[in-house]
Amino acid sequence: MTEPIISLNRETEIALVGGGLVGSLLALSLARRGFDVDVYERRPDMRTSKISAGRSINLALSTRGIKALNTVGLEGKVLEIAIPMRGRMIHPVKGDLAFQQYGKDDTEYINSISRGDLNKLLLSEAESTKHANFHFQQKAIGIDLFRNALELENENKNEITTLAAQIIIGTDGSASAIRNDMKTLPGFSNSEEQLDYGYKELAIPAGKKNTWQIEKHALHIWPRGTFMLIALPNLDGSFTCTLFLPFEGEKSFEKLQTRESVVDFFKTEFPDAFALMPDIAEDFFENPTGSMVTVKCGPWNVEGRSLLLGDAAHAIVPFFGQGMNCGFEDITVLEQCIDNHTASGGSLYLERRQKRDHEGAPRRFKEGSSGWRWVFDDFYRARKVNSDAIADLAVENFTEMRDKVGNPRFLLEKAVEKKLQNEFPGEYVSRYGLVTFTNRPYSLAMEAGHITDEILSELCTGISTPEEIDLKLAKKLIQTKLSPLLATK
Amino acid sequence: MTEPIISLNRETEIALVGGGLVGSLLALSLARRGFDVDVYERRPDMRTSKISAGRSINLALSTRGIKALNTVGLEGKVLEIAIPMRGRMIHPVKGDLAFQQYGKDDTEYINSISRGDLNKLLLSEAESTKHANFHFQQKAIGIDLFRNALELENENKNEITTLAAQIIIGTDGSASAIRNDMKTLPGFSNSEEQLDYGYKELAIPAGKKNTWQIEKHALHIWPRGTFMLIALPNLDGSFTCTLFLPFEGEKSFEKLQTRESVVDFFKTEFPDAFALMPDIAEDFFENPTGSMVTVKCGPWNVEGRSLLLGDAAHAIVPFFGQGMNCGFEDITVLEQCIDNHTASGGSLYLERRQKRDHEGAPRRFKEGSSGWRWVFDDFYRARKVNSDAIADLAVENFTEMRDKVGNPRFLLEKAVEKKLQNEFPGEYVSRYGLVTFTNRPYSLAMEAGHITDEILSELCTGISTPEEIDLKLAKKLIQTKLSPLLATK
Repeated sequence: MTEPIISLNRETEIALVGGGLVGSLLALSLARRGFDVDVYERRPDMRTSKISAGRSINLALSTRGIKALNTVGLEGKVLEIAIPMRGRMIHPVKGDLAFQQYGKDDTEYINSISRGDLNKLLLSEAESTKHANFHFQQKAIGIDLFRNALELENENKNEITTLAAQIIIGTDGSASAIRNDMKTLPGFSNSEEQLDYGYKELAIPAGKKNTWQIEKHALHIWPRGTFMLIALPNLDGSFTCTLFLPFEGEKSFEKLQTRESVVDFFKTEFPDAFALMPDIAEDFFENPTGSMVTVKCGPWNVEGRSLLLGDAAHAIVPFFGQGMNCGFEDITVLEQCIDNHTASGGSLYLERRQKRDHEGAPRRFKEGSSGWRWVFDDFYRARKVNSDAIADLAVENFTEMRDKVGNPRFLLEKAVEKKLQNEFPGEYVSRYGLVTFTNRPYSLAMEAGHITDEILSELCTGISTPEEIDLKLAKKLIQTKLSPLLATK
Repeated sequence: MTEPIISLNRETEIALVGGGLVGSLLALSLARRGFDVDVYERRPDMRTSKISAGRSINLALSTRGIKALNTVGLEGKVLEIAIPMRGRMIHPVKGDLAFQQYGKDDTEYINSISRGDLNKLLLSEAESTKHANFHFQQKAIGIDLFRNALELENENKNEITTLAAQIIIGTDGSASAIRNDMKTLPGFSNSEEQLDYGYKELAIPAGKKNTWQIEKHALHIWPRGTFMLIALPNLDGSFTCTLFLPFEGEKSFEKLQTRESVVDFFKTEFPDAFALMPDIAEDFFENPTGSMVTVKCGPWNVEGRSLLLGDAAHAIVPFFGQGMNCGFEDITVLEQCIDNHTASGGSLYLERRQKRDHEGAPRRFKEGSSGWRWVFDDFYRARKVNSDAIADLAVENFTEMRDKVGNPRFLLEKAVEKKLQNEFPGEYVSRYGLVTFTNRPYSLAMEAGHITDEILSELCTGISTPEEIDLKLAKKLIQTKLSPLLATK
């Protein structure tokens, strides 16, 4: 292979690798604090070029994401382009639709938003600060962790450049090039679990005069046990649908190789959706089949020089609707860590690291006293247990969505849970509620969820309607089991 | 980056990637069965070029490795170039050496052998079958898992070629390029844990007239709590030493940056070894610092087309002396799986797969009925639980070697264990013995080890010499706790 020409062409303060949702919001946050940020993004500028679509699951923005947007003053602008979804609308193969409210009442809902629209807004807001520069079609190939130098490929020009930066932050997603180089460091732990399910983006077009052909304010689910279809509303009246299906097996992507088999499959499994999807076969074969991975790794930083954040540090599967919300919450937590290490919440003392070239095996060095080291260490310590928790919750929630939501016992427990939320407001909080409608730590939500599972299991034994539950017992269980946990953390 | 020229230049039956110890022995085994094997090795031919040394931990060949060598008739030839090590020789900072026998008696020992010598022997034996062709300086860059095509870089010529093979087996070690491409497959799970310790090869030269300056038939250990030095004998009278030391911290590689600090460190910590190491400072700075990783992944095969084996599938740290033995046992198990799927133990029916090019996300296909699919599936099922077990045992044994071997309670338990082996031969078997001197599954050794830990702990409570143990209680504990496990599997 011919060796590319390498030139060390500039030095930058903070380099972000990846200008997706998390990268753009982080650039905005740092720029607002007066840091100079350069963002290197593999794709062309999505505001001026058409990005190949067809790989997107619509996003469900909720409390944690909104909080981070609020910090940079964007909550209002973003919610303007979002559609509230107040619950799940369950579509059985035959029979009536069933609605399961997400929150304890109408004030709690999640928000359907287009990934592209949100990303464009964040890019423009970041750029408008004048402290964030975006460089498009710059693909990160790797990072020299000791020189803190980033190797970038301009995919248009077939040109490779290397640039040094004081700080390099990888917001380059689940297949992060930065993580790939960190993997060889002493003490680094990396695990990647590919799900054996794929996903496919499909669409339900708008009805006449841009109306929604099915309930607008819901996340629609067609649960089928081993697979499912979901649909989230768009502003123009259409719905973005996603089919989650095993790659292999009796009902799987490998079995859907012809137009006929696709049409048969949808007609049989999702008859009401099929009736609304005129382009199903075209969409199915035009759009790629996506894969899903859970990444757990650590530590996320090399001294105060480089850091992983968002999916690059902790990719999760999409079934709790928390991927973006978790990545945005990373930014909230990182900002708290910065504030904790700066008297005024202002700019941090940055010490220029002497560049060094080390021979032999990769090592991490503790030299230098850059304040960023403490910020990044704190961030990792605060965040790791929570990103691990949401990763596990997201995998668990897949079973719930595709299988349990149609199960009578599950429906009874959900109804009892709703009753408990009404009877004991503030005292009984569901796992879903803690994850979605609060900023409490994900790890707390996971622990609380184990307790509420026990409580629901005990209360639902021997009854068949929510009205039959023993409220005295419920109160005792909540106060002895759940309240101490919620109070202590 | 300029695009390399790709040419699909040949088709091969079985391609092995990596001609190290495991790759060479596997090539020999398959060639003996009449398969045509091509082996692609990154390094030059070590029989004619000097390979850069200084990264090797000497090998401790034991029962599992010997069994695999015996199958190809090489046990005798290999043991001729090995040196029996009957136990650990413990070197304290001050005071007398202590010898801990490995086996129940003199018939049980492990064998020190040079990696290079063994590798050369296996290469030549494989070549002499005329069914195994070795191609050197061919670095695997990656594998197209759907075309079953291997991308190779000739590092001398800066030339890239792609070749298709019916079967591709990755024996390319812990940083396997084949595993790296399998990682993106649906359902693939990959975890890599870097140890925060490095290692450095050092040497004790031969004494006068090629004599051994310390006990020849022992594995020498200088245990120092958080770090250790070991030494294994070579045929020429020298010892290959390895220092295991944290990368960072109070006593660590990062603290040893000058000749003076290295000399001071060895003089203080390993005075008797230091006296025998005249070139310590030169060796220390000339030899690279190696890193160690535990890899667990799965599944190891893509249908009947590609397979990971040895370190590529399950790299382990070196502290149980089982890396090579485990890799060699893989070959024994693979051969059993082949035999189970062939009536005569002869050659397997190979169905030429139609090459296909698939768009979209990576998928695995079940088409075709190649018998190799069943062989590889069986192999993975049989082996995975055992490679996971030895991976964990190897990490645990590090604590034992560097820390516990100097601890009085540990020494008492070891003495009691020896007594139990003598009193109850065949009934009491130690974890170390099961791993090192039997072919019982590693997972069984791990389970049995938990039981023997309990037994030793109970028997050693309140006593101070091995003679004081309650033999009746010992017999009861062994027969009720250990024997059922050893009998059932």
